[in-house]
Amino acid sequence: MKGYNHNDFLSPFTWRYGSPEMRRLWSETNKRRLWRRVWVALATAQHHAGLISTDELADLQAHQGDVDFERAQEIEAEIHHDLMAELRTFAEQCPTGGGKLHLGATSMDIEDNADALRLRQSLDLTLAGLDALLAALSEKIERYAATPCLAYTHIQPAEPTTLGYRLALYAQDLLADRQAVARARDDVRGKGLKGAVGTAASYTKLLEGTGMSAAEMEAQVMADLGLEAWPVTSQVYPRRQDWQVLSALAGVAASLHKLAFDLRLLQSPPFGEWSEPFGAKQVGSSAMPFKRNPITAEKICSLARLVRDLPAVAWDNAANSLLERTLDDSANRRVILPQAFLATDEMLRCARRIVEGLVVDEDRMAQNLATYGPFAATEPLLMALARAGADRQAMHEVIREHSLAAWQAVRRGEPNPLAASLAADERITTYLPDGDVRALMTVEGYVGDAPERAILVERRACSGERAAESVGGSCGKRLS
Amino acid sequence: MKGYNHNDFLSPFTWRYGSPEMRRLWSETNKRRLWRRVWVALATAQHHAGLISTDELADLQAHQGDVDFERAQEIEAEIHHDLMAELRTFAEQCPTGGGKLHLGATSMDIEDNADALRLRQSLDLTLAGLDALLAALSEKIERYAATPCLAYTHIQPAEPTTLGYRLALYAQDLLADRQAVARARDDVRGKGLKGAVGTAASYTKLLEGTGMSAAEMEAQVMADLGLEAWPVTSQVYPRRQDWQVLSALAGVAASLHKLAFDLRLLQSPPFGEWSEPFGAKQVGSSAMPFKRNPITAEKICSLARLVRDLPAVAWDNAANSLLERTLDDSANRRVILPQAFLATDEMLRCARRIVEGLVVDEDRMAQNLATYGPFAATEPLLMALARAGADRQAMHEVIREHSLAAWQAVRRGEPNPLAASLAADERITTYLPDGDVRALMTVEGYVGDAPERAILVERRACSGERAAESVGGSCGKRLS
Amino acid sequence: MKGYNHNDFLSPFTWRYGSPEMRRLWSETNKRRLWRRVWVALATAQHHAGLISTDELADLQAHQGDVDFERAQEIEAEIHHDLMAELRTFAEQCPTGGGKLHLGATSMDIEDNADALRLRQSLDLTLAGLDALLAALSEKIERYAATPCLAYTHIQPAEPTTLGYRLALYAQDLLADRQAVARARDDVRGKGLKGAVGTAASYTKLLEGTGMSAAEMEAQVMADLGLEAWPVTSQVYPRRQDWQVLSALAGVAASLHKLAFDLRLLQSPPFGEWSEPFGAKQVGSSAMPFKRNPITAEKICSLARLVRDLPAVAWDNAANSLLERTLDDSANRRVILPQAFLATDEMLRCARRIVEGLVVDEDRMAQNLATYGPFAATEPLLMALARAGADRQAMHEVIREHSLAAWQAVRRGEPNPLAASLAADERITTYLPDGDVRALMTVEGYVGDAPERAILVERRACSGERAAESVGGSCGKRLS
Amino acid sequence: MKGYNHNDFLSPFTWRYGSPEMRRLWSETNKRRLWRRVWVALATAQHHAGLISTDELADLQAHQGDVDFERAQEIEAEIHHDLMAELRTFAEQCPTGGGKLHLGATSMDIEDNADALRLRQSLDLTLAGLDALLAALSEKIERYAATPCLAYTHIQPAEPTTLGYRLALYAQDLLADRQAVARARDDVRGKGLKGAVGTAASYTKLLEGTGMSAAEMEAQVMADLGLEAWPVTSQVYPRRQDWQVLSALAGVAASLHKLAFDLRLLQSPPFGEWSEPFGAKQVGSSAMPFKRNPITAEKICSLARLVRDLPAVAWDNAANSLLERTLDDSANRRVILPQAFLATDEMLRCARRIVEGLVVDEDRMAQNLATYGPFAATEPLLMALARAGADRQAMHEVIREHSLAAWQAVRRGEPNPLAASLAADERITTYLPDGDVRALMTVEGYVGDAPERAILVERRACSGERAAESVGGSCGKRLS
Repeated sequence: MKGYNHNDFLSPFTWRYGSPEMRRLWSETNKRRLWRRVWVALATAQHHAGLISTDELADLQAHQGDVDFERAQEIEAEIHHDLMAELRTFAEQCPTGGGKLHLGATSMDIEDNADALRLRQSLDLTLAGLDALLAALSEKIERYAATPCLAYTHIQPAEPTTLGYRLALYAQDLLADRQAVARARDDVRGKGLKGAVGTAASYTKLLEGTGMSAAEMEAQVMADLGLEAWPVTSQVYPRRQDWQVLSALAGVAASLHKLAFDLRLLQSPPFGEWSEPFGAKQVGSSAMPFKRNPITAEKICSLARLVRDLPAVAWDNAANSLLERTLDDSANRRVILPQAFLATDEMLRCARRIVEGLVVDEDRMAQNLATYGPFAATEPLLMALARAGADRQAMHEVIREHSLAAWQAVRRGEPNPLAASLAADERITTYLPDGDVRALMTVEGYVGDAPERAILVERRACSGERAAESVGGSCGKRLS
Repeated sequence: MKGYNHNDFLSPFTWRYGSPEMRRLWSETNKRRLWRRVWVALATAQHHAGLISTDELADLQAHQGDVDFERAQEIEAEIHHDLMAELRTFAEQCPTGGGKLHLGATSMDIEDNADALRLRQSLDLTLAGLDALLAALSEKIERYAATPCLAYTHIQPAEPTTLGYRLALYAQDLLADRQAVARARDDVRGKGLKGAVGTAASYTKLLEGTGMSAAEMEAQVMADLGLEAWPVTSQVYPRRQDWQVLSALAGVAASLHKLAFDLRLLQSPPFGEWSEPFGAKQVGSSAMPFKRNPITAEKICSLARLVRDLPAVAWDNAANSLLERTLDDSANRRVILPQAFLATDEMLRCARRIVEGLVVDEDRMAQNLATYGPFAATEPLLMALARAGADRQAMHEVIREHSLAAWQAVRRGEPNPLAASLAADERITTYLPDGDVRALMTVEGYVGDAPERAILVERRACSGERAAESVGGSCGKRLS
Repeated sequence: MKGYNHNDFLSPFTWRYGSPEMRRLWSETNKRRLWRRVWVALATAQHHAGLISTDELADLQAHQGDVDFERAQEIEAEIHHDLMAELRTFAEQCPTGGGKLHLGATSMDIEDNADALRLRQSLDLTLAGLDALLAALSEKIERYAATPCLAYTHIQPAEPTTLGYRLALYAQDLLADRQAVARARDDVRGKGLKGAVGTAASYTKLLEGTGMSAAEMEAQVMADLGLEAWPVTSQVYPRRQDWQVLSALAGVAASLHKLAFDLRLLQSPPFGEWSEPFGAKQVGSSAMPFKRNPITAEKICSLARLVRDLPAVAWDNAANSLLERTLDDSANRRVILPQAFLATDEMLRCARRIVEGLVVDEDRMAQNLATYGPFAATEPLLMALARAGADRQAMHEVIREHSLAAWQAVRRGEPNPLAASLAADERITTYLPDGDVRALMTVEGYVGDAPERAILVERRACSGERAAESVGGSCGKRLS
Repeated sequence: MKGYNHNDFLSPFTWRYGSPEMRRLWSETNKRRLWRRVWVALATAQHHAGLISTDELADLQAHQGDVDFERAQEIEAEIHHDLMAELRTFAEQCPTGGGKLHLGATSMDIEDNADALRLRQSLDLTLAGLDALLAALSEKIERYAATPCLAYTHIQPAEPTTLGYRLALYAQDLLADRQAVARARDDVRGKGLKGAVGTAASYTKLLEGTGMSAAEMEAQVMADLGLEAWPVTSQVYPRRQDWQVLSALAGVAASLHKLAFDLRLLQSPPFGEWSEPFGAKQVGSSAMPFKRNPITAEKICSLARLVRDLPAVAWDNAANSLLERTLDDSANRRVILPQAFLATDEMLRCARRIVEGLVVDEDRMAQNLATYGPFAATEPLLMALARAGADRQAMHEVIREHSLAAWQAVRRGEPNPLAASLAADERITTYLPDGDVRALMTVEGYVGDAPERAILVERRACSGERAAESVGGSCGKRLS
């Protein structure tokens, strides 16, 4: 088969991003295998209708696997139609049955059912990737469910949360994505066998007198393929389907972008809380060999953007497929479908690698909490003072005063003096003993029910994944 | 309340597009009503916990409806925070209970539950619009299920189909959209009551000793609001939710764009098959007063494009909401959420008007079928000839010859002579009597099982709608 | 005039974002003023051709300013065509000349020239906003050109740079944007007077025997309007023009997004280098009153995303305006054009406020540089050691050893010991005296020619602005 | 070199779309050639500074062309950094000078200048493609400048225009695109030599005592590369540059989409005016061998959509490149840059093929004009009647009556009787002799100054192209 190398343009999805499995699904070879599978399923049903003999069918079955891309390309160069070229190639290989291929069919009867099968294969692989990631996340959530750390809003230190709780946010988003991808997968339907404009007129004619209706033939073929058909179609399955699939992938991309961006931020030394795993021989900055750049997370963010805008192209295909179909979808579908799946595949693999190898610097987490957390702790202190009879407004002012002073200390790089200074102010200790003040200022415990809720999501992540064990999950094992 | 007029910028969604109901849902007044509803629900639960007295609660309930936008704007001008300004306005109105509003809450506890309620209100209105459109479509499908017309692929005449079958394609897409919108509606969840970073720490503190946990309080509030809560959240509900909602609306936009574009094409006089209803006094082209421009359909296509790209903005909000939330979503959410709903609303109303009043020119449909259909009929003729023992290749050539001649006649504006000329060629009549040839060339019947399949989808459109009768459907009635 | 208030949907661009000037430009009133200006310009040229009498023209001129939106709305409710309704309104006001309005014209002859004028007005206002921002930036660049601070790549501390140099990066991007906006402004052309399909056939007929050609009439009208016309048009000016204008605005949005995001990051206390100005009474987090959230910068990022996707809608209008024009552009243009300008306007105002009031914490900048800078300084040290005869590979290892130890100290929150520890290692001082080592480790000076280059850009920012002084710049003054 | 085949995913841009020249520009091989060119240019300048000996430089120059992708891939597998791997590969090949490669440089000093060179190469090729298309268009405009045909607005027959005038609309859009692409090309600047964060600090140190400043070194290198440098940069050239380039390509895509869509419409048999050239052996619909599907134009529309959304990805890269750069641009730039250029390249080639081989059916054009044109001609008739003293309103009604009757005839497929029936109505002939009525109804001449204006644009298309002759135009020749 003709090869292509780096003297020509090669997409990074050919050689750089995406798993070998996903690349194989989006190869021409796989596409042609699926075409042949549809052709043989059609012939099988037509054999049952008496239109194709046992020998003819056997001949077709015998050569179903003989994809010969070389020969097909030769023919295509002449006739400029890839499916018809493959059809002729297949027919040439079948001296007995070749003439009975494609009876009553239009190109898209073959192509669009194959496309639906390929979408489903790819969605299954994506689900497996999601499940593996969810399993990895699940493990970390369990481990860190009660580990306190600082939460940040507006990229500003806020109140404490727990590490597991934050991770549960990612898991919850990804569970919603999993549901959307699974829905898209379950909703995938083929065109069925409906001919040039969707009416099945050619099959109706062809089957006259055979005792089999076009609808029965369609039902047999689709059962053979293990695929449902849309009740009505134009020449093609509704292009809305592509859009739904790509939208589900775009959702995954959004969730992974957030996860990766959070990591990029927390890996920054002034935060220093997280780091993606780093290979021993990997070259970072040439100028600063110790530097740890979050390049895997950056890659996720980069690819996520690419996926974000692909649904809009599929939208256009759906919205502009005029009357019984126009061909303005074909060229870009060759790009957007594989690209969306391969990019998502790469992102999922990267995200899993990051989550599994996530380096958590518990010292720095504790340190940031000690530095910035006490400010947040003034809120429960204020409540307690009010409950103890102090004037809320006055106490608010006292606390504010101490807070501002503490803030200046922090800015100078000193430890946060707030707890101590408040516990030493008698305007406060009039209402609350200094021990109580100190206890209230211990922010580690000020995390509400975050640990319990994190575990709640972890359970779902794990069970969602367990349901999908057949496609490769590992979390069930861990739990047993 | 301050008014705005056309001396200033007014969005077309304020005065030109969208229903009064949808505009009201996206008014500041409705937003503030919902805020107050959440505040009172929170106070009610806290009353059960013993934190708020019966009198205090009664005071809040008494003033729940007194939205005073003027006053709130005055306060906002000072403090630059719209929710806190409304809170102070509400509190001012409640001399007894005002001080007990918002206990333990963070702004987004109020805002995001209100936003979820508003999303659900708007999705319900959208579903009602979809159902009304599906009912209208359903009626037309039933009526035209077996009416033959020409199908077009590549905007080229192809084989026959039926008008009802084509309409069923739209209905099928819209049913898929209905499912997506209904899923989005059912998936809408509020933030719950989780405080500044999602941990419910402030509520946990607040409720200490009351015998009510933060989770219980949340459950009571959400039951009161009739809304489920996300198990975990950051300061806000996951922004992925906005994206899912806008994606569902974008799907509707795609389906309506296709419907409208098909109409724009078939309303073109060289086709002349369809026309949108046209008001008596409406001014078309000033130069040609009889001209029928498909301006309603063009408006749908125009607005559809606007909706297409809005999910990408919501995607960004989801993907970039760093750590426990950043505020980079706020400003654009004020635009994209109402815009998506109002544009969809307008499109649905327009589409319904078009479908209900669709002008079908059955004469022109028959004429186009007579002109271009016979070419398609050569396919079953060829099959019949082959079955009758003729050489397929030779017959193909004979038919091609006649077809090309017939094509020239058609191009000159003459009636299509193909059936007659084939029935007169003895290379053909050797195998098939001329009556059979003429019968095979009668294309009206060459529509396979299109009528039955159209009805199949019609049933779903109607029952999908019937299920939703409570939101205003009418199809159930028609059927009974 | 009918007013709208917050009981209905009001776009945030009506009441929340954008300057009064920009809102006025995008009001219906301004649009109608421009329509009338085009009508009168047309009548004036036709007066010169002898088609309109002096009295008739005087009547039209006398009522040019009497926009009466109420009356026009009444008529539009009947005829569903906004421009024709305004035309009748204007004509009603002119008993003498009213009948001579719009002679030979098609709606878009009026509308599209007015739209071009409005684009130009809005682009001028945008340029003024850009110039004001550039002037503010210019001042800061000059002030901080040589102020050293840490540069960050991958959000990781890297080598030193200067604050002015970083600001010059924004200025350089904005200068490119300024050029794009100015090009778009200068490229704006009107439709001219070309009638229903662009051929000027109606004018040619109308002017027969007057001695004035359609081209001459067009030239007079356009000279009157101070606007060039496209040589050829369909019924409308090429919709590519809208796309070019919105693309230029999207560029501004990208540049401001970067500026604002950088600020949001550096305002985070772990960095703590920058802060946007903060109003005295502004309410931040209710839980932590001292918190400084970068809400203005967050708003910029939020609105920037909105503008990013608007060119794609304009692209669609251009790409799908079939044959001599389809109306699928109209509805969305009412949204995307004002939205792009108003959002950009708001962002520019916010950015200017931020830059003018930028709070720079020079202490924290110096502290961060002292903490992370020494690692970068090992690069010139290594060069100097190699030059002094040391083995590069060996020295690299020694430095790496010290760097890792220093890194651990930094992680613990201690001052960076690297300079001292290297200057104390005799494997190093064998080649370089410890004073030289310390001097090399003084990173403040390791900023290459950043100060000079920053000033280079500052000059351009200022002179670019000076050229545009007529639209309101202030930088020229400062320099004189 | 490792080859890839259709058992794996291969992008359609590798084997299906785009010219061999454009593919080569976007190959890894070309990229590495450009990297080496930058390295050698840097070494040359450093040789002038005395840092590299003549022998060392000669060694580097001798091996500049020896790109060895195999070896580089081996190294990259180990160190995960493609540029550093190529650097080591190059260095290995140069026993004498290898150690002197990359002195003082950071990866992006090499990569981004090479990228700028590659953008320029690709923009030049794009300009050549645009010029070839403009030359083809120019020829057709000249030929058909005065050929009357029907114009369509709202896809409804409107007034006459000329074929050349319509073609001039495309040419005018493409000329604007040409200007944007040329501006983007001329605006391309490299990063220059500015080191890790843009300050040129490492070069400044390196060059100490050599008498050459960093700025001088940069100037020498850039002069050698024939490329200007941005005055200031972060670690990379401003990512706004990518956005500007992709925006210019998106503009081309919009213009070609319109051209192709118009053709798809007019190739529809009910219009039948245009057809794209059709290869002899090409397989159309299998069911209707004579069918002419506009598959080349459909491909253009399909690819155009792909290009439309790519600027938004580049926008994100620009808007999110935080502080002195983040790496979230890298992965998607490997996709969007080649994809935009290769898709544009393919579209330009297809458009040129279509325009050069455009099949114009002048008979059908005349026929459509005769059918629909007379309605438009009633406008000048009405003017003439009014001038002749008839009551405008009354005549409007008379004409309307005849028009509606004529419209019914047209709908039945009969020739348009309007001219005859008007010329026979004495309510009309009272004011104008029937000969004059018939003359006024001769619509062919009602094209205003369309022919002259078409030629005006043709001249620009041709001269714009002539100016660019060096990149391969042919139109100049034709004119001489």
